[in-house]
Amino acid sequence: MYGIFSYDNAPPRVGLKHGSQILDLELVSLLGYFDELAIDSTVFAQPTLNTFIGLGKSRHRLVRERLDELLRGENTEFSKVHDQIFINASRVTMHLPVQVGDYTDFYAGIHHAENVGRMFRPDAEPLLPNYRHMPVAYHGRASSIVVSETPIQRPSGQYLGPDNQPVFGPSTALDFELELALIVGKSNPLGEPIPVDEAEDFIFGVALFNDWSARDIQRWEYQPLGPFLGKNFASSLSAWIVPLDELEPFRVAGPHQTPTPLPYLQQSKPAHFSLDMEVVLHTKTGDEVIISRTNAQYLYWSFAQMIAHHTVGGCNLNIGDVLATGTISGDTPGSYGSLLELSGNGTRPLHLPDATTRTFLADGDRVTFRGWGFSDGIRVDLGDVSGTIR
Amino acid sequence: MYGIFSYDNAPPRVGLKHGSQILDLELVSLLGYFDELAIDSTVFAQPTLNTFIGLGKSRHRLVRERLDELLRGENTEFSKVHDQIFINASRVTMHLPVQVGDYTDFYAGIHHAENVGRMFRPDAEPLLPNYRHMPVAYHGRASSIVVSETPIQRPSGQYLGPDNQPVFGPSTALDFELELALIVGKSNPLGEPIPVDEAEDFIFGVALFNDWSARDIQRWEYQPLGPFLGKNFASSLSAWIVPLDELEPFRVAGPHQTPTPLPYLQQSKPAHFSLDMEVVLHTKTGDEVIISRTNAQYLYWSFAQMIAHHTVGGCNLNIGDVLATGTISGDTPGSYGSLLELSGNGTRPLHLPDATTRTFLADGDRVTFRGWGFSDGIRVDLGDVSGTIR
Repeated sequence: MYGIFSYDNAPPRVGLKHGSQILDLELVSLLGYFDELAIDSTVFAQPTLNTFIGLGKSRHRLVRERLDELLRGENTEFSKVHDQIFINASRVTMHLPVQVGDYTDFYAGIHHAENVGRMFRPDAEPLLPNYRHMPVAYHGRASSIVVSETPIQRPSGQYLGPDNQPVFGPSTALDFELELALIVGKSNPLGEPIPVDEAEDFIFGVALFNDWSARDIQRWEYQPLGPFLGKNFASSLSAWIVPLDELEPFRVAGPHQTPTPLPYLQQSKPAHFSLDMEVVLHTKTGDEVIISRTNAQYLYWSFAQMIAHHTVGGCNLNIGDVLATGTISGDTPGSYGSLLELSGNGTRPLHLPDATTRTFLADGDRVTFRGWGFSDGIRVDLGDVSGTIR
Repeated sequence: MYGIFSYDNAPPRVGLKHGSQILDLELVSLLGYFDELAIDSTVFAQPTLNTFIGLGKSRHRLVRERLDELLRGENTEFSKVHDQIFINASRVTMHLPVQVGDYTDFYAGIHHAENVGRMFRPDAEPLLPNYRHMPVAYHGRASSIVVSETPIQRPSGQYLGPDNQPVFGPSTALDFELELALIVGKSNPLGEPIPVDEAEDFIFGVALFNDWSARDIQRWEYQPLGPFLGKNFASSLSAWIVPLDELEPFRVAGPHQTPTPLPYLQQSKPAHFSLDMEVVLHTKTGDEVIISRTNAQYLYWSFAQMIAHHTVGGCNLNIGDVLATGTISGDTPGSYGSLLELSGNGTRPLHLPDATTRTFLADGDRVTFRGWGFSDGIRVDLGDVSGTIR
């Protein structure tokens, strides 16, 4: 997986994560190991991955093949410079890996949508009529996407007080949302939709993503135009992006879609990915509790369907755009991807080992998402995403 | 007003609109007329205004004073180079004036919100409970903001057909929305709200803005997370941005706000602007009909309140961001800022001089917004924004 790192006051550059080490791709390039690929080393001397992403999938594959060859250790010259080009991950500062043009948040986790629907509209069908016809989504705030480990400031805002009048203050219902972010790898011109069967060509890679949410602010503001301040104070993106190619071993069929989607959403091959995910809560007292375990195959809509829908009216995507899946919940209580669901909207507090309880996040809480694919002995880790509430 | 223009294959640069002429500010600068201001001419040799905007209001004022002095014609040297530095506007290509990081659309036109509420929720209060407590807003799509005169492609998408089942096809309810766009002039760091009385310092300028909307797509998709494909196919921004300073003569008190907003939204001076606006429909047959006349002072929330609200939870704004007001409608039928309202959701077709009718836009229709301030003999024009449906 790729990210942007810096250390010892040197400028940020592109790195490849390799165990607990980071391979400095600018140095690898300067040492001539990419010469045959005709890739300029300045591509790796950038503060974001956008230029590297712009090389396109066929050249990413060449880079990957070359790196695999070098990392197998058969190249004696390469082995000699090992100490020079590998940096221990503990020594570096990680940066936001992409410059994000636009950020879109989908709502493709059907169990999440059902759980939220049951809580907010108890007397109605949990899913709204459009849900199984289209990947529902809204535009989010790109400027407040931060890299993993950036502290998260509890937002203040308006919400309804006990007497049902709006009050202003720090959110009392701060939550995480367990999501995957797709990083757009190729641009489409305005007015030119991307067909569903070509959509994966437009995904550079995938990363864990925490779309922090202030539920009290969100609940008061979100009608009729959707979430705004309840979300735009911060979203955390992993420092590491896994190219979509590397998730190929975990491709699976998604849930059966009924009714059959309209033709522009019908895909000709399985397009879901089985990726295990877990949410870890680290409390101030040092406890580390796994509070949720789920899997990306619970998403109702595939990545490809999200992109086909997003662009079907002509909307243009750009390299570095973030398309997040929406909260991924499984169908059992231990697999829910937000505290809103895990605590039953605050009615079922979580009991932690330090004898405290949580309905929503407390100051000092640290939340980490982990994810990985595992199939036929092959394991691919996603990069963690963490944030601590201050 | 400032914009980005090019002609004769020269690269885009910053221009000042002066009647039917454009003053080439790069040339003015290269000729040394800004030397005393210590502004590098490269600021004007840019494909967007962002670098110029970044100079800040105090230097914008110095540039403006210097230009006023030169344009008064008292400088003999300057008069001599007139033919070199003025270009007729008809000769140039205009470009999107800013690089837009994020785009936010407010809903601050209270008559619009009431009209829409009456149509969509006939049995309820037209305004939702939060409306008079906060400037409701949602995030829009930045990538599909285009400069005035860019042709607008009618989007296809899902909407409900006659039997209440979703169908796919070209929108049959394509509309305009008459709005003003604020162009952000200064960034605030993530986590640092902008107080309402400092908020105008963060506005570089104002421009007319058409947030094209596909009502059929929007109606089917927008619950529960807000508009998405019904809006993100295109929004048109005027090529010309008027600095907020120049609108000072038109400052007025806005509508009385009841209930009194929470303290973070209470401003200590009048912060609305009386700007006349009109919508012109040019039909294929050559007719030009003014179908709406309204004024920006009908906005319920001020520009400053929009910014204070947007950032109160810590959200960061960046130079070049677009904050649009939402549709500006007056309180009489001839002053509505969208066809949805003008045609009573299609029930009261507009009768045009060519004996055709409109409920929504037809292919070939061209829509132009015009705007200006006029007070005590001072008139300031906003730049037009136009688009033709194809």
